[in-house]
Formats: sequence, C-alpha cells, structure tokens
Amino acid sequence: MIQRPRGTRDFAPDEMETRRYFESLMRDVARTHGFREVSTPIFETTDLFVVKSGPGIVEEMYAFKDKGDREICLRPELTAPVIRFFVNDLTTYPRPLKMFYFGQCFRYERPQSGRYREFFQFGAELIGAPTPESDAEVIGLAASIIKRTGLKDYHIRVGHIGILRSMLASAGAKPDDMLRILQKLDKKLYDEARPLMREAGISDDDTENIIRITQITGPMSVLNEFSGEAKEHLEQVFSVLHAYGFDNVSVDLGVVRGLAYYTGMVFEADAPALGAEKQICGGGSYSLSELFGGEKVFSSGFGIGFDRILLALQREGTTSPKTCIQAYVVPVNEKMRERALSIVADLRGSGIVADIDLMRRNMARNLKYADSIGARYAIVVGEKEAEIDSVTLRDMVTGEQTLVRTSNLANFLGK
Amino acid sequence: MIQRPRGTRDFAPDEMETRRYFESLMRDVARTHGFREVSTPIFETTDLFVVKSGPGIVEEMYAFKDKGDREICLRPELTAPVIRFFVNDLTTYPRPLKMFYFGQCFRYERPQSGRYREFFQFGAELIGAPTPESDAEVIGLAASIIKRTGLKDYHIRVGHIGILRSMLASAGAKPDDMLRILQKLDKKLYDEARPLMREAGISDDDTENIIRITQITGPMSVLNEFSGEAKEHLEQVFSVLHAYGFDNVSVDLGVVRGLAYYTGMVFEADAPALGAEKQICGGGSYSLSELFGGEKVFSSGFGIGFDRILLALQREGTTSPKTCIQAYVVPVNEKMRERALSIVADLRGSGIVADIDLMRRNMARNLKYADSIGARYAIVVGEKEAEIDSVTLRDMVTGEQTLVRTSNLANFLGK
Repeated sequence: MIQRPRGTRDFAPDEMETRRYFESLMRDVARTHGFREVSTPIFETTDLFVVKSGPGIVEEMYAFKDKGDREICLRPELTAPVIRFFVNDLTTYPRPLKMFYFGQCFRYERPQSGRYREFFQFGAELIGAPTPESDAEVIGLAASIIKRTGLKDYHIRVGHIGILRSMLASAGAKPDDMLRILQKLDKKLYDEARPLMREAGISDDDTENIIRITQITGPMSVLNEFSGEAKEHLEQVFSVLHAYGFDNVSVDLGVVRGLAYYTGMVFEADAPALGAEKQICGGGSYSLSELFGGEKVFSSGFGIGFDRILLALQREGTTSPKTCIQAYVVPVNEKMRERALSIVADLRGSGIVADIDLMRRNMARNLKYADSIGARYAIVVGEKEAEIDSVTLRDMVTGEQTLVRTSNLANFLGK
Repeated sequence: MIQRPRGTRDFAPDEMETRRYFESLMRDVARTHGFREVSTPIFETTDLFVVKSGPGIVEEMYAFKDKGDREICLRPELTAPVIRFFVNDLTTYPRPLKMFYFGQCFRYERPQSGRYREFFQFGAELIGAPTPESDAEVIGLAASIIKRTGLKDYHIRVGHIGILRSMLASAGAKPDDMLRILQKLDKKLYDEARPLMREAGISDDDTENIIRITQITGPMSVLNEFSGEAKEHLEQVFSVLHAYGFDNVSVDLGVVRGLAYYTGMVFEADAPALGAEKQICGGGSYSLSELFGGEKVFSSGFGIGFDRILLALQREGTTSPKTCIQAYVVPVNEKMRERALSIVADLRGSGIVADIDLMRRNMARNLKYADSIGARYAIVVGEKEAEIDSVTLRDMVTGEQTLVRTSNLANFLGK
C-alpha cells in the first residue's frame, strides 16, 4: 500500500472543518485590524534562507536542485518570503503596510509529537515606522487572534533585545560573540552561556548581572530599575497595549529569540496545556529587507504555530461548530426521483446543505445512511404529499414527522 | 536582489482577496452539495504518481531525493493523493464518500502565459457506486461551482470513454495500443492517430468511423444512433442533470481525457474567453484505488483549474467585492490618543475593519493616508466631542461630517 510521506499528515473531513474554522477566524481578526493577506510560493531559492539564517539552515530544510540546476527549497518559514515579496514588488505601497499570511512550511527533522515535517503557520508583518504603536499593533493582533480562538490559558511575554545587547556590548562582547551568547541565554542554558561569556572577556560580575536580567519577568513596573531608549520604548508599547485593552501581557526580559535579525521588541506566547513544548507564537521587530537587496525599513511581525494552537485548544476541550447535512432527501419510489432531485437542487441553491441517495438504496437503508452521516432532517418525497405540493420532514433526532409545503422548505430548514 | 523562483507567483493584497473570495465561494457550493473538505501533503512519494500515470511523469514533476534518500515529489495533481488517503485511512467511512479539496500543485515545464510551475486546483472526488446519479452528482457540482463564480460563457461537454474503447476493441485494437491511440484522438491529432490505428490492425473503414464518432457533439439526441450500456448510462446521467436543472450540458464523444485510469463517463468544461488553452475543468469516473493497494471502488471526480477560471473571469470583466478599511481613527492631539486606541479596539471587537495612525502623522497626512488606502470613513477623535462621548465621522467620499455617539459607532458603521 502506498503511504503518505513520513512526518506529514492527511486531514479527514471533521479535522479539516475544525482547521478551516480556526483559519478563517484568524483571517477575520487580522482583517478587522487592517491587515491584508498576501501569499508567496511553496518553494523559494535556498539563498533566501541562507542569507537570513546562515548556512546551517540548509541541513534543516527540504533543499534540492531543480532540473535547471537551481538550488531551491521548501520554505521553512514565511517571514523571509514575505519580506522578499515586499522588496521585489511592494515598496511603493502606502506605509504602514500591514500584511498577513497562512500556509504550509517544512522542516527536515525527526518527526516528534506535535512537530511535523509539514506544518502550518499563520503570521503577520508590518512595515512602517519604529514607533511603539507599530510594535503594540503587532502584539495586539497576536493577542486578539489567540483570544478569539477561545484558548483559555496562555501567556504573552514581551521583552526588548536591545536591553541585553547593550549590556553585553558595554560588558565587552564583540558582535561575533553576541549571537552565540544570546542563543544560550534564549534557551536558559546558563551553564553553557557562562564559559562563552568568559571567553568573550565579560567579567564574572557582569555575567551574573546579565543572567539575572534575563530572569526578570512581571508587570511593567519591573522595568523601573532600567533607563534608556529600550526601556522607554517598551513602556510606551505597554501603554498602547493598555489603551487597546490588553492587560494580560507581561514583561519578560528573558525573551531573546536567538536570531540575529531581531532588533528591538521581541515577544512570545505560550500555552501551558502543551507542556514542555509550549510556545504557540513568537515575533518582534527586525531588519531583513536590506539583506535581500532592498532599502532598510522598520518591520515587526509574528508567526503563530497553527498546529500547536489547535493542539492546545484540543487539550483544553475547546470545540468548533460542525456543519451537518441539513436535509437528506429520499424519494419513496422511482417515480418520485425526479421531484426529489429538483428539491435537492433548490435547497442547495438556497445555501442549504442537502443530499440525496446516489446508491439506489431502499427507504430503510437510506434512513440508516442519513443517520450515519449525522443528517439533521430526512425529507421524504411521497406521491400523496406531491399532490398537495408538500413533503414529509422527519427530524432525525426525535423521529417527529411534519408535513411541509415544498415552497416553505428552504425557509424552514434555513432557520 | 533575491527573486522569487521562475514560474511561481506572489499574490498582493487585492489579488489575494479576489482569490480567497472565489476559493471560499467554491468551498460553500461544495458544502451545500454534501461534499466535505480533505487535505493531503504538498509532497508525496514519487511512486504514487508513477503508478498512476507511468514513469514519463517524473520528467514533468519537481521530483527529488530527501535527506533519507527517499524519492519524493511536489504533487502534480490531487486525485492520486486523495485516493491514496482514502486507501490508507478512509475505507470505513459511510459511502458514498464525497470529498473536495483545494491547494497548490506543481509541474516542471517551461512557464507560459496562464501556465505556472505552481498552480492551484479545486476538485472533488466521490467514492460510491457506479450509478448514473453518482456521475451526475459530480458533473452537477462542477456545473454549480462554475455557475456561481459568475462566469458568463462556458461549455460543459460530457462523453463516455466506454463507447470509443469498445469500438476500438471490436475493431481489433489491443489494450497496449488503445491508450496511445486515445491520446491522439483526445488531442484531435487525426493524422497522427491514423498510422497508429493502421499499425494496430484497424481497417480504414473502422478508423474513419471511429474518428467520426469523436466528432459527435450536441444534445442528448445525438446518442440515438448508439446502443448498449455506455449509451444508456450516459442517457441516465443526462436525465438526472436535467432534473437537477442543468440544461446547458451537451454530449461530446470526443472527450477522451487520454489517461488510462478513466473508465466510463468523462467530461470537460471550457471558457472561450481563454482562447486556445480554454479548458477550465476536467473529470470523469475512474479506477485508481486498487493501483495503490486498496480495494477496487467506483470513483468519479473532477479538477477545476483555479488560476484558469480566475483568468477567464477577469477577461470577462467579472469582479469580486473588496473589503475596505471602514474606519480610520485619527486623534486630534496626543491627549486624545488613548481614547482613539480604545475606540479602534472596540470597533475591531465588533467585527469592523478599523485602523489607526501608527506613524505619528499629523491630521492632514493622516487623512491623506486614509484616502490612499481607500478608507470609507475617518473618525476624528476630538476633545470637545469627547466631553459629550462622541466623535466626528467624516465620509471620505463626500467629505460630509456627522457627530456620532461613541456607543452608536459600531452600529452605524456595521450597516
């Protein structure tokens, strides 16, 4: 039997309906916030991601040569493609340019629980000015989306990479050492960070102070011991979030994100329902367009792990509405088939989910099938009823039967 | 500057909105017909398509080895993956099983006008019984979808591969010759079909008669000269389509589809607006599951070229509704910013597309920006109005200004 490739998934109708429901909900929230959808190809030149993340990324991607010997790869994330699109074609759009996207991404790694080789990401990017309002807008969209999914337990934590960067720089770290140290701090691997910091010429006192800073979390008041641009920026971000009504966002100076292109505000959201691998969203302000050959612009954005947030919702027991077959139409005999077909066509035309026997089953087996697919009503098309332009409506839950005029059927079922 | 890969496309906000509009419309029609959505991975094992279409397909695909040395490829179409999914996991679902899908497919060929290396397909597959009702259901769904898009000029042509197959067989063609001959007949390449038919031992009289048959098109009455199962099946398909109300479907015995796995009814739809490459939809009943290691089942389905139908709609001048920013909120000064932010948050929460200045622009530049993004109203948040819990609503088209109570704003804009 031919199998699906390892680490990928097929989605059956029930699961797919849930996925489309939440996808569509996220899209609606993004639209109300004035973000508009863009889309980029499934594959890109390998270069795009090497330029962004360094050559190490190739090992983790589906990278291959096409028949024209071009190095291409399945996209591992969507920020680089969207910024590449901006640099290619969108630079003349009015700013701020607010974009969102939804689609598959790919990584080549050992498949594990909740981590797939093909996974889905919802995200947004804002290109405009480095104002606190812009950062707050991006955090606010992520927060609104998470809230609207109905997820109960989640935390949004906001930091500023500038605070650690400037402390590391004044403690003597060179740009080359900085990223390696930040990656260890990001993962809270302090025992691995310490020797790196010593090698970089940072004193033990400075090292312990910096490590202490990465552990600072709490309300905005924890920023009181700091001063400078980064602190002021973060305070203003929080005051815009407060005006928007987002009061469940906290400061966490340990949010580092471990990637060279983040420049200022950084944030993450996690869902405790997911256990150790609890992150559902990550983002911040960054600088990428100039790496792809464009002008340097301010950008801020985030990605939501669509599969991960769905898993968290499922663990919390949140469900989504299901559409069922509202009307399963059954002709009582061959003579009534044409009338039944025309009734089905009318119902479908009125936007009602309607179906009819395609297997030439008898009445009993038709009702059994209607039950197995969860049909709400069976519409029995009989000869006597036809004479008075009516049908018998059978409630599949209660078994109750009602005579309904054919012309009233769509109205009745549409309620 | 890093460019997108050749033969692929990025979609900017306006175009993406059109695409999502028609995608969503197609999904709605499929749902009302009792079809439910499924989804399969972007890549599959190369084997899947070789088994279905022969080794020649590898040349036309993005086929590559993954790091585990497995032969995988970007899917060139979606019928094989969906039937593979059925064989793997869905065989116990109640029948008929009615599925639809939407997604990217890939082919490696020289990019031409209207043909891309990454393209989008909407399609449906029905697994059940070989009844005329099943075939009519599939044709009917395709017809309903095309109609609902608003396409004005299109033709749906239905044939039956069994008619030609049985004529070729009685004229002496062996199974091995049959497919090559049918492929030439499918493309109306009669001068190339004739020598093949001669080599296959078909007499000149039979050859010319078969060629004549492939040119038969018209209303159901053109079938009168035929007899046998295929003819009777096709007549019943047409009578179900008639009862459903689809009277714009014609017989075309030249629809051959040139693929070995089609077994009975075959159909195509085309849009003259597209010129020479006018096909927008193709399908029929087929037999695939047993090739993938499953039981043999009856199946019937179709694929709609999403990009092609959008191009046809565009050439006919059909447009789709655009959402605009309904409310662009402008505080008159820094003091009013917090109030403005809270108004934006409330409007967004009510489902209204609302935006606010993120660039710290002055009033004049804000109104200019609101105009450039096509905002419907500007909401001016002033101090005097705040005292009476109101704002000034400025119609961006007429310039008319109205005082509106903040609590009435969402209602007013929601209309």
